[in-house]
Amino acid sequence: MVLHGPNLNLLGVRETKVYGTFSLKEVDRNIRAFAKQEGIDVSIKQSNSEGEIVGFIQKAINQFDGLLINPAAYTHTSIALHDAILGTNIPTVEVHLSNIYSREEFRRKSYVSSVALGQISGFGMNSYLLGLRALIGHFNQK
Amino acid sequence: MVLHGPNLNLLGVRETKVYGTFSLKEVDRNIRAFAKQEGIDVSIKQSNSEGEIVGFIQKAINQFDGLLINPAAYTHTSIALHDAILGTNIPTVEVHLSNIYSREEFRRKSYVSSVALGQISGFGMNSYLLGLRALIGHFNQK
Amino acid sequence: MVLHGPNLNLLGVRETKVYGTFSLKEVDRNIRAFAKQEGIDVSIKQSNSEGEIVGFIQKAINQFDGLLINPAAYTHTSIALHDAILGTNIPTVEVHLSNIYSREEFRRKSYVSSVALGQISGFGMNSYLLGLRALIGHFNQK
Amino acid sequence: MVLHGPNLNLLGVRETKVYGTFSLKEVDRNIRAFAKQEGIDVSIKQSNSEGEIVGFIQKAINQFDGLLINPAAYTHTSIALHDAILGTNIPTVEVHLSNIYSREEFRRKSYVSSVALGQISGFGMNSYLLGLRALIGHFNQK
Amino acid sequence: MVLHGPNLNLLGVRETKVYGTFSLKEVDRNIRAFAKQEGIDVSIKQSNSEGEIVGFIQKAINQFDGLLINPAAYTHTSIALHDAILGTNIPTVEVHLSNIYSREEFRRKSYVSSVALGQISGFGMNSYLLGLRALIGHFNQK
Amino acid sequence: MVLHGPNLNLLGVRETKVYGTFSLKEVDRNIRAFAKQEGIDVSIKQSNSEGEIVGFIQKAINQFDGLLINPAAYTHTSIALHDAILGTNIPTVEVHLSNIYSREEFRRKSYVSSVALGQISGFGMNSYLLGLRALIGHFNQK
Amino acid sequence: MVLHGPNLNLLGVRETKVYGTFSLKEVDRNIRAFAKQEGIDVSIKQSNSEGEIVGFIQKAINQFDGLLINPAAYTHTSIALHDAILGTNIPTVEVHLSNIYSREEFRRKSYVSSVALGQISGFGMNSYLLGLRALIGHFNQK
Amino acid sequence: MVLHGPNLNLLGVRETKVYGTFSLKEVDRNIRAFAKQEGIDVSIKQSNSEGEIVGFIQKAINQFDGLLINPAAYTHTSIALHDAILGTNIPTVEVHLSNIYSREEFRRKSYVSSVALGQISGFGMNSYLLGLRALIGHFNQK
Amino acid sequence: MVLHGPNLNLLGVRETKVYGTFSLKEVDRNIRAFAKQEGIDVSIKQSNSEGEIVGFIQKAINQFDGLLINPAAYTHTSIALHDAILGTNIPTVEVHLSNIYSREEFRRKSYVSSVALGQISGFGMNSYLLGLRALIGHFNQK
Amino acid sequence: MVLHGPNLNLLGVRETKVYGTFSLKEVDRNIRAFAKQEGIDVSIKQSNSEGEIVGFIQKAINQFDGLLINPAAYTHTSIALHDAILGTNIPTVEVHLSNIYSREEFRRKSYVSSVALGQISGFGMNSYLLGLRALIGHFNQK
Amino acid sequence: MVLHGPNLNLLGVRETKVYGTFSLKEVDRNIRAFAKQEGIDVSIKQSNSEGEIVGFIQKAINQFDGLLINPAAYTHTSIALHDAILGTNIPTVEVHLSNIYSREEFRRKSYVSSVALGQISGFGMNSYLLGLRALIGHFNQK
Amino acid sequence: MVLHGPNLNLLGVRETKVYGTFSLKEVDRNIRAFAKQEGIDVSIKQSNSEGEIVGFIQKAINQFDGLLINPAAYTHTSIALHDAILGTNIPTVEVHLSNIYSREEFRRKSYVSSVALGQISGFGMNSYLLGLRALIGHFNQK
Repeated sequence: MVLHGPNLNLLGVRETKVYGTFSLKEVDRNIRAFAKQEGIDVSIKQSNSEGEIVGFIQKAINQFDGLLINPAAYTHTSIALHDAILGTNIPTVEVHLSNIYSREEFRRKSYVSSVALGQISGFGMNSYLLGLRALIGHFNQK
Repeated sequence: MVLHGPNLNLLGVRETKVYGTFSLKEVDRNIRAFAKQEGIDVSIKQSNSEGEIVGFIQKAINQFDGLLINPAAYTHTSIALHDAILGTNIPTVEVHLSNIYSREEFRRKSYVSSVALGQISGFGMNSYLLGLRALIGHFNQK
Repeated sequence: MVLHGPNLNLLGVRETKVYGTFSLKEVDRNIRAFAKQEGIDVSIKQSNSEGEIVGFIQKAINQFDGLLINPAAYTHTSIALHDAILGTNIPTVEVHLSNIYSREEFRRKSYVSSVALGQISGFGMNSYLLGLRALIGHFNQK
Repeated sequence: MVLHGPNLNLLGVRETKVYGTFSLKEVDRNIRAFAKQEGIDVSIKQSNSEGEIVGFIQKAINQFDGLLINPAAYTHTSIALHDAILGTNIPTVEVHLSNIYSREEFRRKSYVSSVALGQISGFGMNSYLLGLRALIGHFNQK
Repeated sequence: MVLHGPNLNLLGVRETKVYGTFSLKEVDRNIRAFAKQEGIDVSIKQSNSEGEIVGFIQKAINQFDGLLINPAAYTHTSIALHDAILGTNIPTVEVHLSNIYSREEFRRKSYVSSVALGQISGFGMNSYLLGLRALIGHFNQK
Repeated sequence: MVLHGPNLNLLGVRETKVYGTFSLKEVDRNIRAFAKQEGIDVSIKQSNSEGEIVGFIQKAINQFDGLLINPAAYTHTSIALHDAILGTNIPTVEVHLSNIYSREEFRRKSYVSSVALGQISGFGMNSYLLGLRALIGHFNQK
Repeated sequence: MVLHGPNLNLLGVRETKVYGTFSLKEVDRNIRAFAKQEGIDVSIKQSNSEGEIVGFIQKAINQFDGLLINPAAYTHTSIALHDAILGTNIPTVEVHLSNIYSREEFRRKSYVSSVALGQISGFGMNSYLLGLRALIGHFNQK
Repeated sequence: MVLHGPNLNLLGVRETKVYGTFSLKEVDRNIRAFAKQEGIDVSIKQSNSEGEIVGFIQKAINQFDGLLINPAAYTHTSIALHDAILGTNIPTVEVHLSNIYSREEFRRKSYVSSVALGQISGFGMNSYLLGLRALIGHFNQK
Repeated sequence: MVLHGPNLNLLGVRETKVYGTFSLKEVDRNIRAFAKQEGIDVSIKQSNSEGEIVGFIQKAINQFDGLLINPAAYTHTSIALHDAILGTNIPTVEVHLSNIYSREEFRRKSYVSSVALGQISGFGMNSYLLGLRALIGHFNQK
Repeated sequence: MVLHGPNLNLLGVRETKVYGTFSLKEVDRNIRAFAKQEGIDVSIKQSNSEGEIVGFIQKAINQFDGLLINPAAYTHTSIALHDAILGTNIPTVEVHLSNIYSREEFRRKSYVSSVALGQISGFGMNSYLLGLRALIGHFNQK
Repeated sequence: MVLHGPNLNLLGVRETKVYGTFSLKEVDRNIRAFAKQEGIDVSIKQSNSEGEIVGFIQKAINQFDGLLINPAAYTHTSIALHDAILGTNIPTVEVHLSNIYSREEFRRKSYVSSVALGQISGFGMNSYLLGLRALIGHFNQK
Repeated sequence: MVLHGPNLNLLGVRETKVYGTFSLKEVDRNIRAFAKQEGIDVSIKQSNSEGEIVGFIQKAINQFDGLLINPAAYTHTSIALHDAILGTNIPTVEVHLSNIYSREEFRRKSYVSSVALGQISGFGMNSYLLGLRALIGHFNQK
């Protein structure tokens, strides 16, 4: 399962200097192409609502093996997301388009990273593909 | 009125070491049984959405005498809940299944407790029943 | 576009000492009257949900020239709102009914103000009308 | 065993607005009546001395099954109490008459809560009875 | 009464990117024009001295109904200004040309805002006119 | 009533550079002489025990009109003293031999000063006599 | 020499609940009467300007034996005052009308107290007379 | 003189994982045996009361050459102990059974260490014997 | 170029629970195999010395296109590494074997991440391979 | 232009241990002699008033090429000075007689250094001459 | 194995007031004499380089049973040392010549102590001998 | 003796906007020319290693009269450098090419400045020459 957090649906429309000129659709197309190539099923969702994202994660329990999430703004403010990942115990990889450590002070705290397998940030659209690889790698290791 | 915050619908499914093996349904059954025994009406709701919980509290104004709430993750991040309780001025008791003071640092701050009558935490399912008693006791005192 | 944040629908019902005895409807009526007089169109929305407000802002891109927002409790906790305004790049004026600087410590931080044109706080219902003037002034200056 | 911390012997004499008009004797009478009704033995002590309270807790090891404590001012300053409860490992419930979270900043830290089963605060005299119930509930669960 | 704080006499001379190309004289001309149109008397003063500004505020007690102040650098460092406004109890509106919340960290604290009716910041010269309206609105409400 | 906190019985024996060469007995003799001259009764006590000092304050309720206290080390650590003075509501003046503001960082916080009428520090033995005058002045003003 | 800091000239006019109904003139009359009775000369000055107060202190070097100062708002913000007292090395007593430790957080820091002999706060007009006594006592001790 | 702080009388009874299975009596027997071997007299005391420990230290002035103290919980909270050691100026060695630097955050601050010759922590019962050697070494060096 | 920071030569020998049972040699073999497969040259170095690592980075200027670095302990303490990467301006990817965000507080700050393209942490040996892919991806994008 | 901040007129009179035995006149004589030798004109001013120093800086715009300033106590507290230098954009060198980094904590923050070309501190009277050289060097480089 | 950190080779040459007049050679001679007497082999090294000390610790794995280390300045800044001790898991005792808790604030944090068996500080040369005893005692206990 | 810290060997190669286009060789040539002109001997060294710089300082004891150091990144992280300068007691002047106070927050703390005679920062290559003058001036003053 792949989850996009709030405002990611604006990708390619605005702030192209920070996030690049590709749209969320292109990101999704790339993720799907890569998943197909690796022979895995993906379900992709975007939401601006903290509660809805929590709901998506909860529903993933019996349907998905792993979670690839870009929590965007909720990375830094949502304990509910932290608890949802902790509660469902689903193997999770956290990704970010931009390098969150070279931006505003308030973007340096992540409530998600302490319950994720790991974190990948700063490689634009590629962050998602690397994250998917990391998740696949995690299951191969087992 | 009884409100369960985000991820409480996962009760009994996961993280049973911290929260016990009972499900949210059992919790609700116990609350209803106890309420019946005390001769009071209860309405129980769960939501993962901050905005929806705010809405539930606002609607309680004319329908309910008091509020029993386990705000879960929103305890620590939601000023909107704080404002909803303050704005509706409904007598509120805050409960927690686990002892939030022996857990992570970020769980020690509560935006709800300063507008609640009081707080009960750490007694598992029993926290709800004690909270209901506390609320009843509050109305008897008047 | 005019957005009212969480709990503003309680205006005039409760806490009248802090916020005055007027209801949100009266606020809206005043805004509409003033807009009409100035010859501009306004769309007014209220929501208790962070995600929904983010959505309203995103949809404003092609429909509205500017945004007048009272983010209420989300002022202090929502990076998602910050990102939505930054991402849509819509000229925004932040207003508050009460003087947020003479209240609780946690109300002094605003994630919205750093991406807004400016901020107006403390003048009750008049804050909205001054904010609308400020927005109009901004477009006249161009 | 029930322990009252420093200055609780002033109950009913002064500051009746915060703590109510009942005296410590009335509190004790209520506790004893409730204990009798539940068929349990209680020993009640009050002390203004940190060292003496530590001593009471230590002596409880072989004589009592559980501890109900209102540490009052020592809640916020005494690591010795923390260590006594930790060292004797006696099941402990922490109670407070007032809601310590809506008072001064320095009353929000509790050295006791991290070693207690749980905490009940804000319900006046009723806090003690709810605490006793919580303790009984804890033993019934086992 | 309208007070300009330190360095505002440099307006239009330097740092025109942040503050605009208009001079303080133009600001004053606009304020006077607007005041005339609204039928009110204004006295405008600028000073670089904290003590002198305190003196201006004190003298305003019997001569003026309200105070419109841009405390500039003293916003963030002067408790004496805070005390002067508190002591004279004159209805005060605080204005800033730039949005002080999107600048240096040390410009985010205001000793004046907690004793002002409200604050308006970020609208350039227009901040003064909006502030004057806010002050007039305050007296009309009474 | 005059209370000396912990270690004040060491006066004149050690650390004479900071506290002077006079002994606690001389301090008491001076206090008694001054009290006699002013026609008031004084009772003077010293204790190293926080709990005992709390007890002395509590007993003062019906016996004494005011309290002159040098809480020494407990100044900075004892909320129990704070609560005792608050609870008994006895008019209290806090005195210190040395200027606690020119010493270690941890001596700059006083839990007593916020419940005292006022504070006098830095004048050696004279601090007590000035404190007594301040207390007398307080009763004369009424 | 006696120095009154900023806004003390407003005494008796405003905020009489905090500072009492007496005017600065009455304070000065009392100080002069007391000085006369003690056989000492006093010069009393008030200023709202930090620089002017620094100047008064500097000029005191050869003219006065000691300094009694109520630095008011400059207590908490002026290192220049700190340096003036340190530089002239004049024996200084710091006084405050109100108990600065039971007011706002920002009034608890004093740049003056670490270079003063001692501090007296909270006794209204009497603070000045006690301060003068403290200063006289200091010279008698020598 | 050897002083054991609060809760050390519980040694060997509880929390044996952290502190070992030996009792305080065994500790004392070892200290006495070692002292005898070194030809020195020791007096050993334990107390749960801060005030009583302060008293023991004060009485040591004329009776003992040095002090070996395990202040336990009071290490982190007692300025009174700090002042007693400073005031009596007795050569002091601070010991701890466990390594206080690998435990809770609040155990990392010691009010005693800044007035002690030195500190030994983490070697269980052996900490006392090493401490005694350190004290003997200190006197031999002179 | 691939750089391993301090103590990474201990891999597989100790602390296998946190870092896995593979040795640094196996890591290097995997990196080399992957590099070969991708048709790129790699040079791999390990050092325990901050200065030596700075030197390696400086020498990379004309010899290598990019840098893959696991700065280990120096991640959190070395501004010299930060400056070396900034000064050479070499495209850099920061990798960590473990998830540094779910470990000690002092491991959460990275001086390297703000000058790196991005960061990958938590995927064991795979972190290096993902990092290499990220670096390759960066050059392909150009 | 050379500006001396508050209390520098006390040089040589008091605190000679920290600042040396030379007077401000001698400093000025040295500056003038050095300026003459370098063939430049200097104007030297001293003021204890923050506002007056701000005024001097503003007036320097058309009259002087550069500013040499020892802001003394205002270094640490004056944003108005910061703004004056920023607003006039005059090339500025900040000098200090003593090494401000080996003194009190509150002397380590400088509001001036971030708008100055550079800072020279710790070389007594020589700091001024080095500062003048630095300023001359700055103009020669252009 | 015994390791001396940076600048310890200066012992006896400079700063003899803090560290004593003995040289590092004398320290080593004492350590060797004591080791011989106890029948154990010691290898002693000093280094000013963080990386080299890390290397020494790593090499100790198969050669030495325990480590006695005075990390000097690296105590407070080196996570690499922390990791080396953690990684090699060698029983370690941390010693300091001076009492690091009565010195500068920045000397109070130790990255080593949390991975050491225990810490001994403040007894000059004797700290090493006591440390060696502590290490021997640790092995005897096993 | 002149010491250049880490990464200064990159001067003129990269980041020329911040540090200028001159190379370290040109800096050294200028220093040598100036030294020759002043008739003094200089030895210049650069190192990226903290330990090596500590060694250079130690060796300077008998060979050099003073030390001119640009500690670069180690300015902000190295207590070892602080201790080396303190231990050798060599008169030291700290210089920086750029104004470290107008850069990142972490560059504002200097462990070196508190043990140096003084600091010069912000004048590019000229900082070194001014520093040398300051050092010469220091010896002339003696």
